[in-house]
Amino acid sequence: AANLERNKYETNEVPGVVTGLAWTSVGGDILFIESILSKGKGNLTITGNLGKVMKESATIAMEFIKANADEFGIDMEDLQTKNVHIHVPEGATPKDGPSAGITMLTSLVSSFTGRKVKSHLAMTGEMTLRGKVLPVGGIKEKILAAKRANIKEIILCKDNQKDIDEIKEEYLKGLKFHFVENMKEVIDIALLKQKAKK
Amino acid sequence: AANLERNKYETNEVPGVVTGLAWTSVGGDILFIESILSKGKGNLTITGNLGKVMKESATIAMEFIKANADEFGIDMEDLQTKNVHIHVPEGATPKDGPSAGITMLTSLVSSFTGRKVKSHLAMTGEMTLRGKVLPVGGIKEKILAAKRANIKEIILCKDNQKDIDEIKEEYLKGLKFHFVENMKEVIDIALLKQKAKK
Amino acid sequence: AANLERNKYETNEVPGVVTGLAWTSVGGDILFIESILSKGKGNLTITGNLGKVMKESATIAMEFIKANADEFGIDMEDLQTKNVHIHVPEGATPKDGPSAGITMLTSLVSSFTGRKVKSHLAMTGEMTLRGKVLPVGGIKEKILAAKRANIKEIILCKDNQKDIDEIKEEYLKGLKFHFVENMKEVIDIALLKQKAKK
Amino acid sequence: AANLERNKYETNEVPGVVTGLAWTSVGGDILFIESILSKGKGNLTITGNLGKVMKESATIAMEFIKANADEFGIDMEDLQTKNVHIHVPEGATPKDGPSAGITMLTSLVSSFTGRKVKSHLAMTGEMTLRGKVLPVGGIKEKILAAKRANIKEIILCKDNQKDIDEIKEEYLKGLKFHFVENMKEVIDIALLKQKAKK
Amino acid sequence: AANLERNKYETNEVPGVVTGLAWTSVGGDILFIESILSKGKGNLTITGNLGKVMKESATIAMEFIKANADEFGIDMEDLQTKNVHIHVPEGATPKDGPSAGITMLTSLVSSFTGRKVKSHLAMTGEMTLRGKVLPVGGIKEKILAAKRANIKEIILCKDNQKDIDEIKEEYLKGLKFHFVENMKEVIDIALLKQKAKK
Amino acid sequence: AANLERNKYETNEVPGVVTGLAWTSVGGDILFIESILSKGKGNLTITGNLGKVMKESATIAMEFIKANADEFGIDMEDLQTKNVHIHVPEGATPKDGPSAGITMLTSLVSSFTGRKVKSHLAMTGEMTLRGKVLPVGGIKEKILAAKRANIKEIILCKDNQKDIDEIKEEYLKGLKFHFVENMKEVIDIALLKQKAKK
Ligand SMILES: [Ca+2]
Ligand SMILES: [Ca+2]
Ligand SMILES: [Ca+2]
Ligand SMILES: [Ca+2]
Ligand SMILES: [Ca+2]
Ligand SMILES: [Ca+2]
Ligand SMILES: [Ca+2]
Ligand SMILES: [Ca+2]
Ligand SMILES: [Ca+2]
Ligand SMILES: [Ca+2]
Ligand SMILES: [Ca+2]
Ligand SMILES: [Ca+2]
Repeated sequence: AANLERNKYETNEVPGVVTGLAWTSVGGDILFIESILSKGKGNLTITGNLGKVMKESATIAMEFIKANADEFGIDMEDLQTKNVHIHVPEGATPKDGPSAGITMLTSLVSSFTGRKVKSHLAMTGEMTLRGKVLPVGGIKEKILAAKRANIKEIILCKDNQKDIDEIKEEYLKGLKFHFVENMKEVIDIALLKQKAKK
Repeated sequence: AANLERNKYETNEVPGVVTGLAWTSVGGDILFIESILSKGKGNLTITGNLGKVMKESATIAMEFIKANADEFGIDMEDLQTKNVHIHVPEGATPKDGPSAGITMLTSLVSSFTGRKVKSHLAMTGEMTLRGKVLPVGGIKEKILAAKRANIKEIILCKDNQKDIDEIKEEYLKGLKFHFVENMKEVIDIALLKQKAKK
Repeated sequence: AANLERNKYETNEVPGVVTGLAWTSVGGDILFIESILSKGKGNLTITGNLGKVMKESATIAMEFIKANADEFGIDMEDLQTKNVHIHVPEGATPKDGPSAGITMLTSLVSSFTGRKVKSHLAMTGEMTLRGKVLPVGGIKEKILAAKRANIKEIILCKDNQKDIDEIKEEYLKGLKFHFVENMKEVIDIALLKQKAKK
Repeated sequence: AANLERNKYETNEVPGVVTGLAWTSVGGDILFIESILSKGKGNLTITGNLGKVMKESATIAMEFIKANADEFGIDMEDLQTKNVHIHVPEGATPKDGPSAGITMLTSLVSSFTGRKVKSHLAMTGEMTLRGKVLPVGGIKEKILAAKRANIKEIILCKDNQKDIDEIKEEYLKGLKFHFVENMKEVIDIALLKQKAKK
Repeated sequence: AANLERNKYETNEVPGVVTGLAWTSVGGDILFIESILSKGKGNLTITGNLGKVMKESATIAMEFIKANADEFGIDMEDLQTKNVHIHVPEGATPKDGPSAGITMLTSLVSSFTGRKVKSHLAMTGEMTLRGKVLPVGGIKEKILAAKRANIKEIILCKDNQKDIDEIKEEYLKGLKFHFVENMKEVIDIALLKQKAKK
Repeated sequence: AANLERNKYETNEVPGVVTGLAWTSVGGDILFIESILSKGKGNLTITGNLGKVMKESATIAMEFIKANADEFGIDMEDLQTKNVHIHVPEGATPKDGPSAGITMLTSLVSSFTGRKVKSHLAMTGEMTLRGKVLPVGGIKEKILAAKRANIKEIILCKDNQKDIDEIKEEYLKGLKFHFVENMKEVIDIALLKQKAKK
């Protein structure tokens, strides 16, 4: 029943909500990255009981956006006159690690452009300041969690393809994989051209 | 006798005081979220011996209000020319966790609009940056505490309905439940149209 | 001899010095809350080897004053052009807990209005952001300490009346109690209309 | 030989250097409080490997001076256009506690007025925000250290007179004591009318 | 396979990405220093799960650049109107120590000048505030890691030449070493005159 | 061989690099204090893996310079329009204690005046805010380290002369000592009138 509720939440009615895959002490799990803009001076707020490394991912994502605003169709003025808040729900659970990097960037680009996030899509991967996607751990557990949560498509780093190759066929049934090398590919796959209703 | 005094406190003469339900090491308990506005520059102060996650809930609530001021009938100018202080009384007890999120938002909307809080009402639930309500733990203990404190109506996340279904009928007698999915529903139930006397 | 000296200190020649009651590891004790104003920008400084919760009490008291300046006859301009320093002497002793809340507020109102503090008066109680007074612990030990220090009147939360009822008559001889529910009552009892010489 | 050197240091050629008495794990000791002014905006810097309580003493002393500048003949403008640095030499030794309070205030008044510090004088005592002097511990050990360092006059809180009464006559030979209740008395005793050469 | 991917990443298409050599608990490793500029006020952001000393290296590098902008052909105005972000990917691994100092400076000079980084080049060495290069530890392990990652040229401090002399000939085959004393030499070797495509 | 390299480094071609003597867990050692100026607003940055007390030494040195700029021929305007960075190389080693105080001040005066540092000179001593030099520990170990590093002259506090008197003649051969009481003497000995090439 809980999964049912969750799946509804996962709809893409609003921009800025993107599904990530996490690796926890009790197995894989899905998590949601939310971002929201408000009138301000370009400040960044990060909540959700996050550790140091995960907070750094948010900072890296914002800096990458500032340096590549044009490429993503983001208005430079918005970057200076909006505050950004990134939140990862389920505050009771401490979260850390770099693997939400690409999810955070996708959430931010969606918020700044208003573009809808593709539904039934999840992703996991570290991003570098230069927009490369790096491989992360716990792939098998994350794939199982994605299936339980009714995910249909998954974005992974090309370096993680070998981890998929080691998983039994039956666990992968119904899942489509996108193996990528940089953030441009992630955004092209994850965000629709269509704008979400605000 | 103490409960009697508490119940008086619980009256809704002033805006900004909302009853929450907490889950402590010695069982369930009620707690009060107070918010107050003063002339300022939009700063947020949080007190009450709160842990990191509970403070983050206050930040999330404020950001959500800034991004949805219109929908709640809040004047954007007030958000920039008032300081907000959120306090959770009984400072001797450390408090933490995300489950006061919806109570904090309700308190803030009440303070900014002046709308009265419904009396004999309590609530518990995490809120996300996008205004969704998430389920929380300790439901059974919280319900028992609410009854002891003479609460008549309780707001919970729809995902917590299953926890109520598992509680014996006799413990639920005299309680009315509202199962909600988002913050708009919480505000519609918790705040009266009527303004409180300042 | 030390008590004799202390009693002199306790005189109300200056505004802003109020006697509180504390509960320490070696029994009850009296403590003094001092506040002082200087030319500034409305900043608050807190000293006296205080823990987090006791510092929060000072913040709560200041916010309450900002939101209720009119009611206490405080000039709004003073709140923006004066710095406030709250100090609790005897820095060798670490101090914490919420029970100095009402003493701090009384000290601040005295400093901002210049009104004299009633002599031979002590108080203990937590205050909420909305000006309610909450009960605190260690009442019996605090009463004994008050008597040793030649205190004649004590302000307590109405919820602490039951703790007084459990103390033997002989310990209470010569003490007058005021049981209150909110800060307005505290200020009416504790501060004289007469202004202190600066 | 070391004491000889020290005694030279102790001369009062410059304003702002005042001798205090400290109580350490290896007995009593003298310490020096230095303060210095530079062009600035009224900022306070504190160094010397000091603990939290001793740093607070410096803050209390500065606030007291701001609120009582007239009484000490200090120019209000200096308080806003000078930075103040307080240092306690011998950085290898951690130092803490409130008993340097009156020494710090004396050093600051000397620096702001340029008045010479009386030579062969030492002092120890906590000060309150309202300028009262409170008693401190370790009096016997401090007195012995003062004699070793060739001190001739000592300022103490009136409440510490009983500690002196318990010391054998022979240890007190050649020492003159001043027992005080407030900071005005300390300054009158410790600072000469004569200005030091800058 | 992982190394293959890495090598691609190591290409010098963009300025500001420089390969360093690290010494970890499991042997030598290569790491990448990325820097990026964005419109701002000269602020420096540092991410990558770095310890205190490694963060200090970034500060030292920035200060050295500010004091020697002319020598490196860097526009002083850029230093005041650009924010700089330095990131070290693979956030799951904590990193510390001074040996990335020369790599950080090289990355920054590349970002500010747009000059391409020589390909198949790695380096390790502490830099001082005056631009000297100091020797670092773990040289043998770092050399082995460099070979595994297909590095062809390595910059080391002259003081580390003796560590190379102790390594067997066969491990050094195919590697060209540059032993340097100051940062000017490092930049001359590491950066091409040719500008990278932005 | 390492010492040979070090000795080169020790040349006085640039201002602001001064040799200090340190006492570490493995015996005495020499260290270098570097300072550098850049366009700014009078901010002070300190790096080199330093502990709290050693950082305080840098603050004390800067404050002393601000209060005595004239005496050292330093332009007051430079103090407000330059940022200062002090660095102590060999970041892998944590460093603390007050004994680098006089070395830091000497480095700063050299940087602000451009005066050359005397070559083959080292020093160790705590400085006070009033410019006195205090004795420090580990003298014997520091002297041995100085000889190994080819130092010819050493500045010490007059109070440390007794420590030299206890060292065997043969260890002191070839070393010239300067015993000083205040910072003016240190600067007169350590800095040449001649300006260094920038
Ligand atoms: Ca979950
Ligand atoms: Ca990971
Ligand atoms: Ca309770
Ligand atoms: Ca919870
Ligand atoms: Ca006491
Ligand atoms: Ca209490
Ligand atoms: Ca001493
Ligand atoms: Ca003491
Ligand atoms: Ca690696
Ligand atoms: Ca190293
Ligand atoms: Ca060394
Ligand atoms: Ca030392």
